[in-house]
Amino acid sequence: MTSPRSDFSRHVRASFRRQKIMRLFQARISTLERGLVEISAVNRPDLEQQDGYVHAGVLVALADSAGGYAALSLLPPGSRVLSVEVKLNFLRLSAGSMIRGRGIVRKIGRTIAVCELEAMMKQEGKWVTCAWGSQTIYCIRPDMTSSRLQQ
Amino acid sequence: MTSPRSDFSRHVRASFRRQKIMRLFQARISTLERGLVEISAVNRPDLEQQDGYVHAGVLVALADSAGGYAALSLLPPGSRVLSVEVKLNFLRLSAGSMIRGRGIVRKIGRTIAVCELEAMMKQEGKWVTCAWGSQTIYCIRPDMTSSRLQQ
Amino acid sequence: MTSPRSDFSRHVRASFRRQKIMRLFQARISTLERGLVEISAVNRPDLEQQDGYVHAGVLVALADSAGGYAALSLLPPGSRVLSVEVKLNFLRLSAGSMIRGRGIVRKIGRTIAVCELEAMMKQEGKWVTCAWGSQTIYCIRPDMTSSRLQQ
Amino acid sequence: MTSPRSDFSRHVRASFRRQKIMRLFQARISTLERGLVEISAVNRPDLEQQDGYVHAGVLVALADSAGGYAALSLLPPGSRVLSVEVKLNFLRLSAGSMIRGRGIVRKIGRTIAVCELEAMMKQEGKWVTCAWGSQTIYCIRPDMTSSRLQQ
Repeated sequence: MTSPRSDFSRHVRASFRRQKIMRLFQARISTLERGLVEISAVNRPDLEQQDGYVHAGVLVALADSAGGYAALSLLPPGSRVLSVEVKLNFLRLSAGSMIRGRGIVRKIGRTIAVCELEAMMKQEGKWVTCAWGSQTIYCIRPDMTSSRLQQ
Repeated sequence: MTSPRSDFSRHVRASFRRQKIMRLFQARISTLERGLVEISAVNRPDLEQQDGYVHAGVLVALADSAGGYAALSLLPPGSRVLSVEVKLNFLRLSAGSMIRGRGIVRKIGRTIAVCELEAMMKQEGKWVTCAWGSQTIYCIRPDMTSSRLQQ
Repeated sequence: MTSPRSDFSRHVRASFRRQKIMRLFQARISTLERGLVEISAVNRPDLEQQDGYVHAGVLVALADSAGGYAALSLLPPGSRVLSVEVKLNFLRLSAGSMIRGRGIVRKIGRTIAVCELEAMMKQEGKWVTCAWGSQTIYCIRPDMTSSRLQQ
Repeated sequence: MTSPRSDFSRHVRASFRRQKIMRLFQARISTLERGLVEISAVNRPDLEQQDGYVHAGVLVALADSAGGYAALSLLPPGSRVLSVEVKLNFLRLSAGSMIRGRGIVRKIGRTIAVCELEAMMKQEGKWVTCAWGSQTIYCIRPDMTSSRLQQ
């Protein structure tokens, strides 16, 4: 018999596998709990901005996906999530061997979830927060009629 | 003799060429004016999120770079720019043949610039705004002493 | 017979009159069009922060209400609006004789609206933008069942 | 002899007393630690929006001041702080007997600080988070020359 836990995990992982950009970034889900997801990738020159640091867009991409899946992990199977808005502050120069985006659900309602986002870099063996912010997510539950599918 | 106009253009393009991620996205500068920059890329499956739309992170990446270069285009040669924070609202599903990020400087001071960001998709021959927001940039001018280089 | 135009105007003004804080700020609606609302107040020492400028919270309050009413002006009578999030960049020191918050609807869907916000000060006879940003609004339409009233 | 602790406290409280709007809101500093400040006010009808909840602008005002003073508490005497931008997500309807804004410094550099903001309401004896977000602050240290005073 399938436990509720494996249900949310399967649901999230199936959606993640469809995110082709995560393959481009060679990213994978490194933590998956109800309401908390982390996505990690090995840093490489391809992801750099002009001064050799990881581009802000990569940090946002990993953190945005992590937040979306953190919300999805709390929703019934068949649900979908859409980012309404995302905001990140960049706290430190993003150098290091690994990149990690983290999303934690701070509040989930019927249609709106708010996540705390973080992007970290592994520097000399330890994780350092390089960006931090918030995200609003629109949750589409399977019982919503089609007229509700438009935000 | 080099005109001021070609100066800012050369400065911006040289920095853009160092952004390796823009090569990964196969993006190029499509508009470059003082205070307004657009960066465009052909859409392709590699950039997709789970439902076949362009991932939010790609829209942020193009718009963030466009905003940074819009600010840099107004600064003296030798200046550098860093994103302090970026915020985008996602207004429409991002489908289409081309992606474009636009940055327009709304205010530039000595060390802080604020840009309006937009991300557009080309849908059936016309550009549609899919994301819109703002960005704060830290400007490092060549006359700042090293003690000023720390934000 | 009541025209649709006077309908939206009456709807917005009735709601504004219930905002007791607007009375505390001695603010009034100075522009009311479909999708664009401005709220103005005379500046006074009561609204100051520590250096004699208008406090950021006042600029946000006027702009937030203006954005909410800009959205409400596009919704059917009986609708309600709630701010999901608001973000303002402060561009200039906010001194002057009058304060004005402006909200313009950039996108409205079934349940989510996004507004551009601006806060201006009247300085030596002309209006200067002192803050600028964005707002996400949750729209509750009269045909939504009670189960939809939870965000 | 004056301890460093009392120094930062005196510095912050002196600035707070100059914020006339805090008097209008009848607000006071309820917690003052290095890097963490809370400002509280008794809720009253004057602060309401159209549906009887505390207006978003009041939550932003208290949280914005709290964040500014949290940053100021870490800066040398004679420093000044300015909000560059503020963003709050509204998580719950803001009803209750008391209002509290909290600012916690997440990162402070030479000129830029980033704070986590929270606004809480006291509901039936316990504090509930009603808004949550972030703020960027510009720090003006006393050793900056006048040319640095322009952001």
